[in-house]
Amino acid sequence: MASHVAGPEIERLVQLLARLPGLGPRSARRAALHLIKKREELLGPLGEAMQIAYQRILTCSVCGNIDTIDPCTICRDARRDPSILLVVETVSDLWALERARLMPARYHVLGGVLSPLDGVGPDDINIAKLLDRIREAQAGERTVREAILAVNATVDGQTTAHYIADLLAPLGVKTTRLAHGVPVGGELDYLDEGTLAAALERRTAF
Amino acid sequence: MASHVAGPEIERLVQLLARLPGLGPRSARRAALHLIKKREELLGPLGEAMQIAYQRILTCSVCGNIDTIDPCTICRDARRDPSILLVVETVSDLWALERARLMPARYHVLGGVLSPLDGVGPDDINIAKLLDRIREAQAGERTVREAILAVNATVDGQTTAHYIADLLAPLGVKTTRLAHGVPVGGELDYLDEGTLAAALERRTAF
Repeated sequence: MASHVAGPEIERLVQLLARLPGLGPRSARRAALHLIKKREELLGPLGEAMQIAYQRILTCSVCGNIDTIDPCTICRDARRDPSILLVVETVSDLWALERARLMPARYHVLGGVLSPLDGVGPDDINIAKLLDRIREAQAGERTVREAILAVNATVDGQTTAHYIADLLAPLGVKTTRLAHGVPVGGELDYLDEGTLAAALERRTAF
Repeated sequence: MASHVAGPEIERLVQLLARLPGLGPRSARRAALHLIKKREELLGPLGEAMQIAYQRILTCSVCGNIDTIDPCTICRDARRDPSILLVVETVSDLWALERARLMPARYHVLGGVLSPLDGVGPDDINIAKLLDRIREAQAGERTVREAILAVNATVDGQTTAHYIADLLAPLGVKTTRLAHGVPVGGELDYLDEGTLAAALERRTAF
């Protein structure tokens, strides 16, 4: 790259930046130069923010969310209904649901989906912890009434949802999943047949 | 963003990442989660690399390049011909020329181009330093024979090149500029008329 013209420190910065999703070798060089140009406003603060994140970020032992406290801010939030669990694949799905500010519920982050082809089995994602969590809640006074399996509408996501629904059935927990249909603002012309079929089948009265 | 669900440390990381060129709010969140996932391999090392860069990176007092030593690695390199100066707009242009490994010359980084509309005048870029550098070399035993004005083929770039060429003429320095023409691998259909005109006018014999 630029190893023989700039110092090894700059080369290392470029190489590490290139490992961020969305940045390639070219954009990593541009990002490095931008950082060096904005030394005081960006390079210093971002380096510090990363060091702080490196030192302080934890995975919540209850729900699998990330935060700097354990249990996380969501698990500690008394205003959130503990009887509804939103089961999501990743923290980024949790953030997406939180941004929409739809439901003051609790979460359970699976940390992935079952994927036999990639060798991901039930023990590789947080399913056992979900069952333990529900059983513990039932043993105490706060029972979990509903588990909303808010996983992606992919084959692996749906397989995982079915697997978890089967495990939750004997526990007497109501298990639901997200509706399929036309995305708001979506054009029919661009949708696949599966989505159109689901939207037509589950049509609602005006 | 995610401020009310994750700690302020994560929110700050996302906000700073979003200021990198090529990353928006969405990809900054994805980058932050990727960093947190790869805590040991990426988050820690990248934070450290940024801190080191923040502490050590300097602008070369001779040529305007960035490095961790001053004068920079290029200015110190005895194998490079000091009689040829490649005058470039930015460090990123210097890197681009170095990657192509074309000419073991020295550089002079202007740090911008003249741009009356943006209020950038001759005193705002490293032109005075270029003249001083050439005069000093001429006073000593190492004279600068040629200044290659390797600026961008934009209006501002070419204006700057003309301005510098006029200043260098009395110093007896040969001033050259990059050739215009069809980029290697380029398709005529996609080129503008100016490039086609230049390529046709400066056609060469087979």
